[in-house]
Formats: sequence, structure tokens, C-alpha cells
Amino acid sequence: MNSYKRANLVYEGKAKKIYSIEGQEDAQWLEFKDSLTAFNGKKEGSFEGKGEVNRDISSYLFKFLKNIKIKNHWLADVNKTSMICRRLKIIPLEVVIRNTLAGSTAQRLGFEEGLKVLKEPLVELYYKKDELKDPFISDDQAVLLQACTHDELKNIKNQAVQINKHLQNLFLIANITLIDFKLEFGFDNLGEIILGDEISPDCCRLWDVKSKEKMDKDRFRRDLGKIEENYREILRRLKELEI
Amino acid sequence: MNSYKRANLVYEGKAKKIYSIEGQEDAQWLEFKDSLTAFNGKKEGSFEGKGEVNRDISSYLFKFLKNIKIKNHWLADVNKTSMICRRLKIIPLEVVIRNTLAGSTAQRLGFEEGLKVLKEPLVELYYKKDELKDPFISDDQAVLLQACTHDELKNIKNQAVQINKHLQNLFLIANITLIDFKLEFGFDNLGEIILGDEISPDCCRLWDVKSKEKMDKDRFRRDLGKIEENYREILRRLKELEI
Repeated sequence: MNSYKRANLVYEGKAKKIYSIEGQEDAQWLEFKDSLTAFNGKKEGSFEGKGEVNRDISSYLFKFLKNIKIKNHWLADVNKTSMICRRLKIIPLEVVIRNTLAGSTAQRLGFEEGLKVLKEPLVELYYKKDELKDPFISDDQAVLLQACTHDELKNIKNQAVQINKHLQNLFLIANITLIDFKLEFGFDNLGEIILGDEISPDCCRLWDVKSKEKMDKDRFRRDLGKIEENYREILRRLKELEI
Repeated sequence: MNSYKRANLVYEGKAKKIYSIEGQEDAQWLEFKDSLTAFNGKKEGSFEGKGEVNRDISSYLFKFLKNIKIKNHWLADVNKTSMICRRLKIIPLEVVIRNTLAGSTAQRLGFEEGLKVLKEPLVELYYKKDELKDPFISDDQAVLLQACTHDELKNIKNQAVQINKHLQNLFLIANITLIDFKLEFGFDNLGEIILGDEISPDCCRLWDVKSKEKMDKDRFRRDLGKIEENYREILRRLKELEI
């Protein structure tokens, strides 16, 4: 399992680096960085060990999903900040699943953050394109932009709702409310659409069930302090679970 | 037909007034104003006779649709600036149909205005709520906001696409390209969803086929001048048609 040899850097994003792997066409090396960014990169920060925490949380959740037969790109962990993943042809959509309205959508639709708890999760699409600042788009626009077909979208939304159901329950046992989170999907080498990217406090809203304290990247976005403590606390609570 | 008696003002919008009609529960009096507004009321203007031109264009198009069995709220014209309409319970959605990308959507999705001609019309929804500035919403958000159900939305979109097909052809005979336009729908007294509001250069993008000159409210929004001339020219060309 430890025979992966990191080769060339193929992509560097705001919070992750992707490397190719020697002799492995269908896998890639995902390294989690310590940097934190928000507002399309306008706000920047970091803390030492953040890459490690996010890798650990992501791996934990990917393994959890794999165990309950929800396919995703995770294959193995390597060193402290990286994981080996299947190489996917990423679909240029950020798929956001909301259980409670917060953030931009609460604001745009006129709800006070945290007060509108949804009976059914809301799935939203954002078009992944930095120069357009990842605009919110409708299903029809996603198809128009050739991000995917209507059938593929149906598949993606079904998976998103399933993943949400299981993660919502998991986090609840850890006394954390999964308010909303962002997923990305891609085609594997057989043309199947599976979950990719990461699932970490960088792209989830996670609130302590009792105190309703934010435990996610909103602490950074909104200068609430104790970012590191909260990220580590999420990991601690997940690891404590006997599942 | 001329026995309608205007009663109380029940609503005044940016470009129209609605009055009740004495002894007629299921109908209302729609008066077209001379005022022009844009950017959620931030920009204001007017020209004398604009209410009349928009009433005439709207009536023309509603009658045209009625003749081809597409139901709508128009019942009769009264005086020069008003029409009698069925009273609808308006669905709080602006339904925008686009044949070519222009305006805000072209900008948000990264296309140069007028260059992306769509194979299939794109139907977009905007939530009618002044204090939220009528935000663009997805189908799922429309349902979440209880603007309508998924089935009602399917009905609305079907009607919108049908109306678009016929209006696109009609305008083409008048040497006008229907780039995009906004419709509103509502429930009549039998609970059926039918077309309401207006169809005028205030809520359509209409370009001369040959010169590609704008003939609609963008002339006002973008300070292009000759607003009145262009509105009148649209009416003139429509009236000239032998249909």
C-alpha cells in the first residue's frame, strides 16, 4: 500500500495540490495544504496542521461512505497530508446540499441564517469557473453550459441526497448539525459518476448541536477566532464515534 | 363591451395600475402608465404616450395568443391606456425565456451578449420580491419558497415554451428577433394557470433582425436614446402584419 510514488504537480488550487503518480494512470495524489482562503481568494490565512486535519476528516468521511457502499474517489492515505484517489474527469459543478438555510442563499432568499430548517434538503448548483466567481446556476443552465446532461444531473442529485442523509446522521451522533456542504463529482475511467474532491470543514457548515457554535470555515470568513480548535474538535468527535 | 366601471385602485406598480371593476369580481382594470423604470426603480424616466403604446402592443400580443388558443388574462380594451383582464392570483415568479443570451445571464455565464444563440429556449425563474431585488432562483428554490409546486412549474414552463415559439415566429415576420422576454402567470377563478401581466418592450428584448439595433427598454437602461421611436416602430410593424 505504501508503494505510491508522487510524480508531477498537475494542479494547484487554493487548498489542495494534485500530483500524478508514477506508473498509475487511473490514480492521483491529493495533498491538503495548510492555507485557508475565502471570498474567491480575496481573504487568505492558514494554520499549521490544517492540511493534516482536513485530510484526516476527509479520509474518515470517504471511508465511512465507502463502508456503506457509496462510491467515491478515496483509495488510500499516504503521509500525513495526502491521499491517493481515483483520477476523475471532474464535472465543473459545485453541488451544495442544504438542510438549513445559511450563508448566501439565506441572504438572497430573505431568511435569517439558521432559522429555516428544510423538510427536504435543497440541492443547488454553482458553476465552477474562477473568472465568473462560481455563479449560482439552475439545472437548465448547467445543461446549457454542457457541464452535464439532465440524466447525469439526476444521478448527481440522487447521490448528493443519499450522501447527505448518511452524513447528517453521522454528524448528529457527534453532536454536530450538518447545516450545508459542497460536493464535487466526476467520471471515473469506466464513465461512472462518483464523488470526488474533499469533505472537510472548509466546505461544510457544521454547528455544535447544543450551543449552535460554528465549527467550520465561517469562523475564518467571519473572523470568529478559534479556527484550529474547532477543526480539531470535529476530527476528535468523529474519531470518538464507535461506528 | 363598454360597460366596465372603474372602481378602487388596488395596486400601483412601476409601470401599471390595477383597479377593481364595479360589480365584476373576476375581472380587473389594468392601466399602463407612461413611466419607465430600471435597476429596481433606481433609474426613472417616461415619455408621453408610452402607456398607450405598451397597452396596444400587449393587447395585440394577447389577442394573437388567444386566437391560437393560448389562454391569457386579456378580455377587452378600454380607453387608450387600459385593458380589462381576468383577475388572477399571481404566482410570484418572473418567468424569463431566452432564445439568445443577453443581459444579466450572458454576463453571469460568461458569454458576449447576442452571440450565444440557443438551440432550445432557456427558461429562468426570478422570485418576485422587491425587497430581495427579484433574485434569480432554481426550480427547487421556487418550490421551497412555495411560489408553486413542481407540477405547476412544469405546466408554467410548458406554456412559456409554447408562447415563445409563437411569439418568436410572429416577431420574425415583423423583422424583429425575440432575444428574451419575461412572463407572469396566475391562477384564474377555476384554479387554472394562465398567462397574465403584460408583454411589451418593457419586458422583452427585441432587436431589429438586420441591423441588430435594440428596440426595447435596453435603450432606456443603457441611455441609447430614441426610446419612443423604437417602441412605436414595434407597434407599427406588428399592426402592418397580415395575420
